[in-house]
Amino acid sequence: MAVALSPTTSLRLKPFSAVQFLSVCRGLYPKTLPTQFKTLATSAIFPPKFHTPSIPSPFCGAASSIFVTNRRCFCTVIAGALSSGEAVESLKIGLSEKQGLEIGEIVGEFRTRLRIVDIKGGPDEGLDRLGQTLVVQGWVRTQRVQSSVTFIEINDGSCLSNMQCVINSDAEGYEQVESGLISTGASIWVQGILVTSQGSKQKVELRVDKLVSVGKSDPSYPIQKKRVSREFLRTQAHLRPRTNTFGAVARVRNALAYATHKFFQENGFVWISSPIITASDCEGAGEQFCVTTLIPSSREAIDSPVDAIPKTDVGLIDWSQDFFGKPAFLTVSGQLNAETYATALSDVYTFGPTFRAENSNTSRHLAEFWMIEPELAFADLNDDMACAAAYLQYVVKHVLENCKEDMDFFNTWIEKGIINRLSDVVEKNFVQLTYTDAIEFLLKANKKFEFPVKWGCDLQSEHERYITEEAFGGCPVIVRDYPKDIKAFYMRQNDDGKTVAAMDMLVPRVGELIGGSQREERLEYLEERLDELKLNKESYWWYLDLRRYGSVPHAGFGLGFERLVQFATGIENIRDTIPFPRAPGSAEF
Amino acid sequence: MAVALSPTTSLRLKPFSAVQFLSVCRGLYPKTLPTQFKTLATSAIFPPKFHTPSIPSPFCGAASSIFVTNRRCFCTVIAGALSSGEAVESLKIGLSEKQGLEIGEIVGEFRTRLRIVDIKGGPDEGLDRLGQTLVVQGWVRTQRVQSSVTFIEINDGSCLSNMQCVINSDAEGYEQVESGLISTGASIWVQGILVTSQGSKQKVELRVDKLVSVGKSDPSYPIQKKRVSREFLRTQAHLRPRTNTFGAVARVRNALAYATHKFFQENGFVWISSPIITASDCEGAGEQFCVTTLIPSSREAIDSPVDAIPKTDVGLIDWSQDFFGKPAFLTVSGQLNAETYATALSDVYTFGPTFRAENSNTSRHLAEFWMIEPELAFADLNDDMACAAAYLQYVVKHVLENCKEDMDFFNTWIEKGIINRLSDVVEKNFVQLTYTDAIEFLLKANKKFEFPVKWGCDLQSEHERYITEEAFGGCPVIVRDYPKDIKAFYMRQNDDGKTVAAMDMLVPRVGELIGGSQREERLEYLEERLDELKLNKESYWWYLDLRRYGSVPHAGFGLGFERLVQFATGIENIRDTIPFPRAPGSAEF
Repeated sequence: MAVALSPTTSLRLKPFSAVQFLSVCRGLYPKTLPTQFKTLATSAIFPPKFHTPSIPSPFCGAASSIFVTNRRCFCTVIAGALSSGEAVESLKIGLSEKQGLEIGEIVGEFRTRLRIVDIKGGPDEGLDRLGQTLVVQGWVRTQRVQSSVTFIEINDGSCLSNMQCVINSDAEGYEQVESGLISTGASIWVQGILVTSQGSKQKVELRVDKLVSVGKSDPSYPIQKKRVSREFLRTQAHLRPRTNTFGAVARVRNALAYATHKFFQENGFVWISSPIITASDCEGAGEQFCVTTLIPSSREAIDSPVDAIPKTDVGLIDWSQDFFGKPAFLTVSGQLNAETYATALSDVYTFGPTFRAENSNTSRHLAEFWMIEPELAFADLNDDMACAAAYLQYVVKHVLENCKEDMDFFNTWIEKGIINRLSDVVEKNFVQLTYTDAIEFLLKANKKFEFPVKWGCDLQSEHERYITEEAFGGCPVIVRDYPKDIKAFYMRQNDDGKTVAAMDMLVPRVGELIGGSQREERLEYLEERLDELKLNKESYWWYLDLRRYGSVPHAGFGLGFERLVQFATGIENIRDTIPFPRAPGSAEF
Repeated sequence: MAVALSPTTSLRLKPFSAVQFLSVCRGLYPKTLPTQFKTLATSAIFPPKFHTPSIPSPFCGAASSIFVTNRRCFCTVIAGALSSGEAVESLKIGLSEKQGLEIGEIVGEFRTRLRIVDIKGGPDEGLDRLGQTLVVQGWVRTQRVQSSVTFIEINDGSCLSNMQCVINSDAEGYEQVESGLISTGASIWVQGILVTSQGSKQKVELRVDKLVSVGKSDPSYPIQKKRVSREFLRTQAHLRPRTNTFGAVARVRNALAYATHKFFQENGFVWISSPIITASDCEGAGEQFCVTTLIPSSREAIDSPVDAIPKTDVGLIDWSQDFFGKPAFLTVSGQLNAETYATALSDVYTFGPTFRAENSNTSRHLAEFWMIEPELAFADLNDDMACAAAYLQYVVKHVLENCKEDMDFFNTWIEKGIINRLSDVVEKNFVQLTYTDAIEFLLKANKKFEFPVKWGCDLQSEHERYITEEAFGGCPVIVRDYPKDIKAFYMRQNDDGKTVAAMDMLVPRVGELIGGSQREERLEYLEERLDELKLNKESYWWYLDLRRYGSVPHAGFGLGFERLVQFATGIENIRDTIPFPRAPGSAEF
């Protein structure tokens, strides 16, 4: 299928003089700077010159960077499969003799592929490219053989849309269609002219001149056209991104992640990588995963005797022999670490994985999930709430604007009305109310709840959803100033002595999406609280140091990224929002 | 120090009608959309109205969102400390009576702080703001008392520069200077007029009218003005970002991370979160950390007897009782997982933590580090090299352009000449040569190496650095087509049967910065290789599936993010490039 990829020219540059040579080349052929990279969609020198024998471009080294072409070198592989072998000609053309250089070649320009979204994703849905000769590469979704033509739908994952390709028996490589090589799941390279489509589902289609089967698909391919359940697809996590739903989830997840970085970066926050492994005692008694090298790694672990674990004289695990010399765990939150950087750099955020070893097999919990935890210095709970609201509006707006096709898909197939629900979030102001007011309000509500409403008890999901979905008609609501006894030790005590400056953001359908607080910045209050809760102050020495040396009012919040993906896509089970979900009994792939 | 932060008005909105009310408000006072957030630097309504008693803005709810002001609510805290108490007046002004609403308030607009970089970071270094009344908040770096005035240098972490503040005895709050509250490390809020500085180190300084000590600094503050060693600072990881060096590293690290996302996003790559915990057998025999719940979590772990670990009849660890039902480990690479998404979405990248339990206490190794692993579909090794070169040039250029002050600092104090070294990387073309040519070249080199040069042996650091630093004069060099026996099983076999399509990018000072390869996409070759290496094909079922169903030529590379930070900052020890380094015996904080 593929031809050799070893260097095909004898271009040789002499060390030391290489750079001089390059600068000559660059003078003649101005180098595109990395910031100016464009996808093919915006390239002026399109269509690609791949099939033009008069311009040899056999490899990505110096020679081809002179004859600028906008396509991946991968085409050399394809070239070998074309009967005409056009692009394989003249492979030996190089600059070696002329330059008298001795060793090395220049690394070529990086080129993005022409993606289907580049063709069909514009406002004209491809009509602006009619008549162009284009190359499309991707995976066959469906194939329909009609009397004289064959329709092949190709998807390359760049968007939900397939490229409809129309092939008749004149096309070079047609015999591969006849021999059954082009089945569902197969990968394919096609070249053709973009024409107006007769079908109602798309404006353009590709009339194929040449076709190469890149990789066939075994008939056992588990994702055939017929609908497959999401439960089954979880067992096929390596193939499920090839489906409409999981492709769309992956793209929206990506858009949410990038929008997260953009929001914080544009507002002057510094991204901090909080540690994943921690031997700090501050993490509290949550269900944590232990990280150890006392058990042999990988293949030997399965047959490892308990007796082989090092022990002390009295039979305890000998932690001094472990990698970190003491018990170490996977982090449950980067917040305390983020506070150390917020009290130095002012505004920071984390975006990294966190872990809970809770044995709960629900559609809302993962053992491994990504958290976003901003921390703002010189800020109070009002700033915190304002930041959380602005953040959520920003990322949701970004997705609505940049993932239109995928959102239409979710709106049709996953959750009817999701676009309206999300538009509300972007357009409506968020409401805040105190926990005490919320309780009073729930007590007066003309509604029977399963769990009793009582000041001092945490709000249950039914209460939260009633507030955001019914009482405030789909408007996100922030409940603040919770009783201190149901909140974490580090939250700032309010002047009433009973509540803390905590906040939970409730959104329709998901319930609590964001939880945050102003942190207790007063050393004496914090120490008193640690004592009340019988926590060991020694363990918190560094956290307390932040209050000893230039303490400042600061606040932050945490957001489970997969909850956000659920919220933005309508996907019901959180295991379908992350590529490789981890849950009790499940850590495959 | 701080006044109460509980809600201070009685504005009450009725449920259901809240939204209607909000839309009225918004009609009158157009809401700034999140995407239009600007830092104060670019705000037209500066200076802030904080000290103007005629505009009451007591809290961040509805009332203050009407009187638009560009500052954090935190100022209400400060207001309480000011003797005039200006902004605390009129707290009871609300819309409650007029509107007759019942519950809830609107969450306020999010405001970024005015940062020192907003004042001094522009081309005029602050001269454009002369005469403005500004508020600065940060931490005291130094204090100098002169005959009639006191100079305080404040840093807020937004840039390397401090704001020089000049205070005389007329300033409100001056008694706090006299009483010694404003010592090194203390946090402080100052308001004053920006004036031309008499000093040579800065163009502007703040003539302070008002000053509030936000948080004092205990005299035991470990980071006094005198130089402290980086070894010592590693024991103070919670405070070290308050130093020039670690503040600058944090900002450059952040810029590199954001540039990484920008590069890949702008080129159509989708960010994939590869799993952190994995029970997959594919990871190979690298030194891995075991992840388990068989050992009790957190505080009980230290006194946990070995006998308490569940075992089978024959004394083996009973993995069926563990969280995942089988041995699970921390990932050493996300590549194989990324391949599953690349063969669905075409171009993807990971950016997440990876782990090695190698017991090596060197300045180049971490047990926990962040990796960037792009994977390109329909791509070969030439595309891969081109992408790696373009990526490196992009992120380095981004840092040179966006972190000028920090880079000047590194150039002066950490590695003389680093800016030139990095500029070379951006401007020069990268050179590629085959491993075979490299060996030949090294054998001919007029240089004695400690390790012998021989075809079939891996290149040592001395060889790599000779090639990039001496032979090619500081130009990054990619060595490709390595002997298959020294490379991983998944690398694509070249036609010579002896080498694989692997590549290592060598850069001055660091040596190997990037390693990548074209992946073996041919099922029969891959299976043969697994057999040769006696690896269990069953374990790789899903990885082999990618070759069974629509296989495509694809390639990718891996880059240790902390190596990149070393490369871009000149920091010698890798433990100083990540906030909380993990190494043998070291997982504090």
